[in-house]
Amino acid sequence: MVVAEVRVELKKGVADPEGKNTLKALELLGFEGVKDVKTVKVFDIFIDVDAGHAEKKVEEMCRKLLANPVIHNYSIKIK
Amino acid sequence: MVVAEVRVELKKGVADPEGKNTLKALELLGFEGVKDVKTVKVFDIFIDVDAGHAEKKVEEMCRKLLANPVIHNYSIKIK
Repeated sequence: MVVAEVRVELKKGVADPEGKNTLKALELLGFEGVKDVKTVKVFDIFIDVDAGHAEKKVEEMCRKLLANPVIHNYSIKIK
Repeated sequence: MVVAEVRVELKKGVADPEGKNTLKALELLGFEGVKDVKTVKVFDIFIDVDAGHAEKKVEEMCRKLLANPVIHNYSIKIK
């Protein structure tokens, strides 16, 4: 059993309203020095394959389902 | 400038419909061997403090805003 951590984040220049609103909320709560907040979606995928094939398989999942190539970058970590 | 990575995940036993639906979609797409999918929300917070004080401050952000103690566990990594 392999756990693949897929990190799907927005490409540079794509608006991140959730991050911006979190930043505003932190400021309203009185936190100082916060310059920016970025939100990232992570999928922990539990797969029953050997580690050697896992990365290729998860890469395909990203292309077909998990990430939108127009707005997302993704990275895969096999644990 | 410090980047704090805050990982907010659902506690054990809390329903994760997004993860469950992703699992279903992967199965429908023909991916075999996928046992479970868990979704995690990550906030990358860019703060202007020294690294020594960053963790305490981000911990407070989690308690006050980013995580709901009823359903979430969180972990903080300072980079």
